[in-house]
Amino acid sequence: MTYETIVCTVTDHIATIELNRPEAMNSIDQTMLDELTAVFAQTNADPDVRVVVVTGRGRAYCAGADLSGGSASLDAEERGWAEEIDEFRDGGGLITLQIFESTKPVIGAVNGVAAGLGATMLLPMDIILASETARFGFVFAKRGIVPEACSTWFLPKKVGVSTAAEWFYTGRMVPAAEALEAGLVRSVHAPDDLLPAAYALAREIVENTAPVAVGMIRQMLWRFAGSEHPMDAHRIDSRINFELGRTPDVVEGITSFLEKRPPQFPGRLPGDAPSSYPWWTEPSFRQ
Amino acid sequence: MTYETIVCTVTDHIATIELNRPEAMNSIDQTMLDELTAVFAQTNADPDVRVVVVTGRGRAYCAGADLSGGSASLDAEERGWAEEIDEFRDGGGLITLQIFESTKPVIGAVNGVAAGLGATMLLPMDIILASETARFGFVFAKRGIVPEACSTWFLPKKVGVSTAAEWFYTGRMVPAAEALEAGLVRSVHAPDDLLPAAYALAREIVENTAPVAVGMIRQMLWRFAGSEHPMDAHRIDSRINFELGRTPDVVEGITSFLEKRPPQFPGRLPGDAPSSYPWWTEPSFRQ
Amino acid sequence: MTYETIVCTVTDHIATIELNRPEAMNSIDQTMLDELTAVFAQTNADPDVRVVVVTGRGRAYCAGADLSGGSASLDAEERGWAEEIDEFRDGGGLITLQIFESTKPVIGAVNGVAAGLGATMLLPMDIILASETARFGFVFAKRGIVPEACSTWFLPKKVGVSTAAEWFYTGRMVPAAEALEAGLVRSVHAPDDLLPAAYALAREIVENTAPVAVGMIRQMLWRFAGSEHPMDAHRIDSRINFELGRTPDVVEGITSFLEKRPPQFPGRLPGDAPSSYPWWTEPSFRQ
Repeated sequence: MTYETIVCTVTDHIATIELNRPEAMNSIDQTMLDELTAVFAQTNADPDVRVVVVTGRGRAYCAGADLSGGSASLDAEERGWAEEIDEFRDGGGLITLQIFESTKPVIGAVNGVAAGLGATMLLPMDIILASETARFGFVFAKRGIVPEACSTWFLPKKVGVSTAAEWFYTGRMVPAAEALEAGLVRSVHAPDDLLPAAYALAREIVENTAPVAVGMIRQMLWRFAGSEHPMDAHRIDSRINFELGRTPDVVEGITSFLEKRPPQFPGRLPGDAPSSYPWWTEPSFRQ
Repeated sequence: MTYETIVCTVTDHIATIELNRPEAMNSIDQTMLDELTAVFAQTNADPDVRVVVVTGRGRAYCAGADLSGGSASLDAEERGWAEEIDEFRDGGGLITLQIFESTKPVIGAVNGVAAGLGATMLLPMDIILASETARFGFVFAKRGIVPEACSTWFLPKKVGVSTAAEWFYTGRMVPAAEALEAGLVRSVHAPDDLLPAAYALAREIVENTAPVAVGMIRQMLWRFAGSEHPMDAHRIDSRINFELGRTPDVVEGITSFLEKRPPQFPGRLPGDAPSSYPWWTEPSFRQ
Repeated sequence: MTYETIVCTVTDHIATIELNRPEAMNSIDQTMLDELTAVFAQTNADPDVRVVVVTGRGRAYCAGADLSGGSASLDAEERGWAEEIDEFRDGGGLITLQIFESTKPVIGAVNGVAAGLGATMLLPMDIILASETARFGFVFAKRGIVPEACSTWFLPKKVGVSTAAEWFYTGRMVPAAEALEAGLVRSVHAPDDLLPAAYALAREIVENTAPVAVGMIRQMLWRFAGSEHPMDAHRIDSRINFELGRTPDVVEGITSFLEKRPPQFPGRLPGDAPSSYPWWTEPSFRQ
């Protein structure tokens, strides 16, 4: 697939998604919003993709929603997004819910400013690396709106309620070092070291672990993070491991371990997903 | 409104609530308990209040429940709180659930010892600053009771299950530096710098962000912190932003941004809350 | 009770459970799995036990599941664990759900490598101390399976979703210092100082706090950590403190406080549990 506002390439089982409107600080117009939703469906469906790295071309990671339309830029009716409140679904949420569904680990490599939807789209990614030049701005309340893209669900899971509150209530730009300290970011790098570090981590996953297992873990982790009782996990890890325990992946996993050599797992997603997946019924937008 | 045991003043849209029984280390008698519950309802209802700062007068922040009644001080029947178990509601919970309902950010400025209910009442506050002289004591198990005021729900959300366990099981006094390290406290200050730091943060909120948006964020953040699926947030941030996106607040938010000047948001709470708020049915105490 | 693969001793109200297959790096065979499940039921039922410390004999803490059966070691049908997916319950989950039910605080003292189930069995323990020689390996995806023992529920509650993701997806061995930084471990000690530190913490609990209150706190903490609304805690802390507030424990708690002497609490678990415990209906494995 080709895109207008983003670039997606796959090398050595690692997909790289680049936001590609550098002249507009990679701000998000309707095309980019549609393409970002589509590309995560594409990487999820591609058996050759085992890890996804997301970054921005140019100086910025992503400056957020495009406000070039002036004071009506966030008016859903004016913008033609929806005429009735019941018809409107936040576009950022379509992206982050698509990332939430991913069975491929998603690594954010934040090369510069990430503001508004540029910041909230990072939250469902598993692991975030940042350049020293990165800054994170949950600026919504400065514009008069609330943080979108399900970010009030995601952010406290990464930095706790108190830090999320301070960042959301002030709307201030958060430097990379503060984001590291708070747990939003996993590591901070010199600009030239950012992508190499992201790819080193991606390769560590590709070279050591089974993609089918990793994909099931990703869904278990995000879905049980908000569950009330560990029995929810017990029911599912029992079923998944009953199925996986007899696959060629496990034969290879144990054999390579006993032979002290790197594993070569044959299983791929989505084709080799266990029959127990998905174990949930996805909630619909309308209740 | 005037109170006997606390003082509430409002300056520049910032309400300051002071615990005012310094001769008793601001320990909580029935009057203070009733007044603390009432004052957070008052600040919530006052459109002039945009941020709330809570602190203690004198050397202590709050020494907790008043045990001057001796060994029957915690006996609900002896104290006349309730005759039957089904009739009894913990008084501390009435305070913290009132704070939970707030649409105004609440900043704790802990000027000294905070023990028992003095510590647990801080937990639903959004951001806690501490003096170097502050200490936090979740002393309940030392007295033979369990931590109240919904604190077994709140504390792990701020410091994780393991730290909460250690503090609750030992009942030890936790110094400000350890509370900072654990994430309970956001910053530690010399005693004279505590209130100036709290007000600087409060002003940063007042001067930069829209009170209606901030109030909606506060409720989204606390209510989705324990929700299972991001769809819960997607449904609500879509509705709230559909409504807010056409308000004068957003016109001002975008215009002031494009004009590079501080915003002057006209919207106030509770009057200008979107019709989608509240989006929940409050659970009743009795199931 | 005597065991083959573990040792359980009780001194000064502190139970010590030692994994005792040092020649096999304390790897877990079926006997140890059954015995670990049994011993936590035993400590829970013994009124003389107030705190539990878990450690490993020899150089390792626990190397995880025994893979000496070769490539069929994780095949439930081959191993005779179950013939049908609906019949299979993960054995690690039986251990961690038993620990989850404990009303006695459980302290992990990790003396060396903890891999696979050796790592995941630690997660429902309240507080984890580690030797400088400890390493934690969530190695499941390296073998082709998913992390079991409800660990996708437990681990993000201790280290957040992002760190859990990195550890699970790479399967790498995590050094003690990294586990400390991430919040999995509470403190790191020279090898000879590990058990003394664990016992000092256990004694601090035994000497200062009431075992009935501590046991109720343990259940409140773990069960409300995943609850959606603080009202869940308010209902229960009101009931529990209505009952505890009139017990001899509270009389002793207040009197010893006023007399400035160490408390001697008479109440013990499970015998003196309040009638409001348990306040839940345990979910069954089959829905």
